Amino acid sequence: MARGKLHLNPSGYRNMRICFLGTGGSWPSKRRNVSSIAVSSGSTTVLLDCGEGTQRQLLSSPVSPMKIRAILVSHLHGDHFLGIPGLVQTMSLNDRDAPMDIYGPAGTLEALEKGLTMCPFSPNFNISGHELEPGDTFSIDHLTISCGRAAHGSLPSLSYRINEPDRPGRFNREKALELNIPEGPKWGMLQRGEDITIGSGPDVRTVVPREVVGPPRDGISLAYSGDTAPCDEVEELARGATVLIHEATFADSHQEVAAAFGHSTARGAAALAKRAKVSRLFLVHISPRYQKEEELKPLIDQATEVFEGAMVPEDGNVIEVTH
Amino acid sequence: MARGKLHLNPSGYRNMRICFLGTGGSWPSKRRNVSSIAVSSGSTTVLLDCGEGTQRQLLSSPVSPMKIRAILVSHLHGDHFLGIPGLVQTMSLNDRDAPMDIYGPAGTLEALEKGLTMCPFSPNFNISGHELEPGDTFSIDHLTISCGRAAHGSLPSLSYRINEPDRPGRFNREKALELNIPEGPKWGMLQRGEDITIGSGPDVRTVVPREVVGPPRDGISLAYSGDTAPCDEVEELARGATVLIHEATFADSHQEVAAAFGHSTARGAAALAKRAKVSRLFLVHISPRYQKEEELKPLIDQATEVFEGAMVPEDGNVIEVTH
Repeated sequence: MARGKLHLNPSGYRNMRICFLGTGGSWPSKRRNVSSIAVSSGSTTVLLDCGEGTQRQLLSSPVSPMKIRAILVSHLHGDHFLGIPGLVQTMSLNDRDAPMDIYGPAGTLEALEKGLTMCPFSPNFNISGHELEPGDTFSIDHLTISCGRAAHGSLPSLSYRINEPDRPGRFNREKALELNIPEGPKWGMLQRGEDITIGSGPDVRTVVPREVVGPPRDGISLAYSGDTAPCDEVEELARGATVLIHEATFADSHQEVAAAFGHSTARGAAALAKRAKVSRLFLVHISPRYQKEEELKPLIDQATEVFEGAMVPEDGNVIEVTH
Repeated sequence: MARGKLHLNPSGYRNMRICFLGTGGSWPSKRRNVSSIAVSSGSTTVLLDCGEGTQRQLLSSPVSPMKIRAILVSHLHGDHFLGIPGLVQTMSLNDRDAPMDIYGPAGTLEALEKGLTMCPFSPNFNISGHELEPGDTFSIDHLTISCGRAAHGSLPSLSYRINEPDRPGRFNREKALELNIPEGPKWGMLQRGEDITIGSGPDVRTVVPREVVGPPRDGISLAYSGDTAPCDEVEELARGATVLIHEATFADSHQEVAAAFGHSTARGAAALAKRAKVSRLFLVHISPRYQKEEELKPLIDQATEVFEGAMVPEDGNVIEVTH
């Protein structure tokens, strides 16, 4: 994240919308489909993972599959990846022509090659695959994406952070009036980073934005753990994020299973979120063993004991994130 | 079908259960998932096609994914095939060890190879792939399966027929009593095809089954069209079947589209069913364009005008077929 650097945000991206499409872990249950989350900022939508059945989950969401700009794959386990071939085919059968990018860890290109050629079908739009290394940073439209290592056994696994551009600094109305800058178009110019002139004749002088506009403020940021045991790298990537979406496959009772298979407990995820000082925490990749409310409650309780307000979204939940 | 040949059916398979898992065509809709039908006879279950999301549809059915003995793939379009990798992975993660067979047209082995290796995952049970040619006949447990060509453009496409073994002939109680064979174990022996002796001393004589048991009667049979325009080969394969499950992607209004893409209208499917003299007709692969009741009604009406009792099942419908 380009802290301290001025990224004006003239289009005013102030909201990020998160659609939880699949919040279950490992295999689908009646209650939860496997992993996928649609994140929209302005007119840009990216999918975080794309498990089998994601295209059908999208039908019950406000997200048009045709508008998905990119898919960020955390790792190549089936419950995070197997929805891609069908989604691509349906997009193509519905005459999509906009290109799409698919990002993932080492192995993604081979998996895509197999997945997109196993059926006798050629998409009629361009798909670009990209293999990432932890630490890579890239842009999708106005969004800056960075990725880090996730601790999911020996399999190359990534966590992601999506940053909206920094927002302009706070406009100091009192200071502007004190400088005799009348409310009107010149305020907008200053807020957009443009110098203005005030006064006339010998009193004319230039006002630069920093005289009335505070330092740029962070845009909304979202970190997604993918599948992982709690680890320093994910904590670092998530530091200070507006939203952390972290896996929480198990409750305390299955702490050893979680550790053995490179997964997190809800409590472990919440502790990481607290250390990383994120503002909001959503827990996903819930094991199919937690179907009933009474089965799920301990997991939620254990998270909220550590991180107040931690939430376990259901498939279909839509969250608008604002500053 | 081995007409006229005696296949005793000591286990008494008299019911076939059909679970409609996905009754939609081409891509999923809210109302219908893509193609899959589970057919159970005795303890044997086979899937007819396995579109994306079939493993989740199974969760709302009485069929355990772990009990699926084989998958019969009609053709390699994604909406009939893309559910296989995820289903296999979930079976394996749930410790399945029973082998499974997957049958399909030319190209199936390569598609399976790609589909089952695109994720870093090796199933812990044995999967055997089989490529079929139209006209092939093979057995799965007590079932005899035959396949024929379907007319779905240039893509190798199969229709299937599943035959339960012939049932024993009708037992003639009156004739048995007339021959002085007392009701009891000897009736059972005769019905099972065994000779018995009656009388004693010089009057002892052998009774052979055909003296009291009628000719064997056909077992239940089910034909499945896969994707196809109405064609002679499917009609021939379906001839006299107890059940025909035929695709009916479109209503009359889209007859030209149906013909252009190797699909059937409901009316066309019903006319074929009538010519083939099947007992019951179910129409599947319904286009996503028919979501509302008023959109679907013309399609149903057009079928029932031609074939009384033709049904358009919904996902989750279960039909018990009895003689």
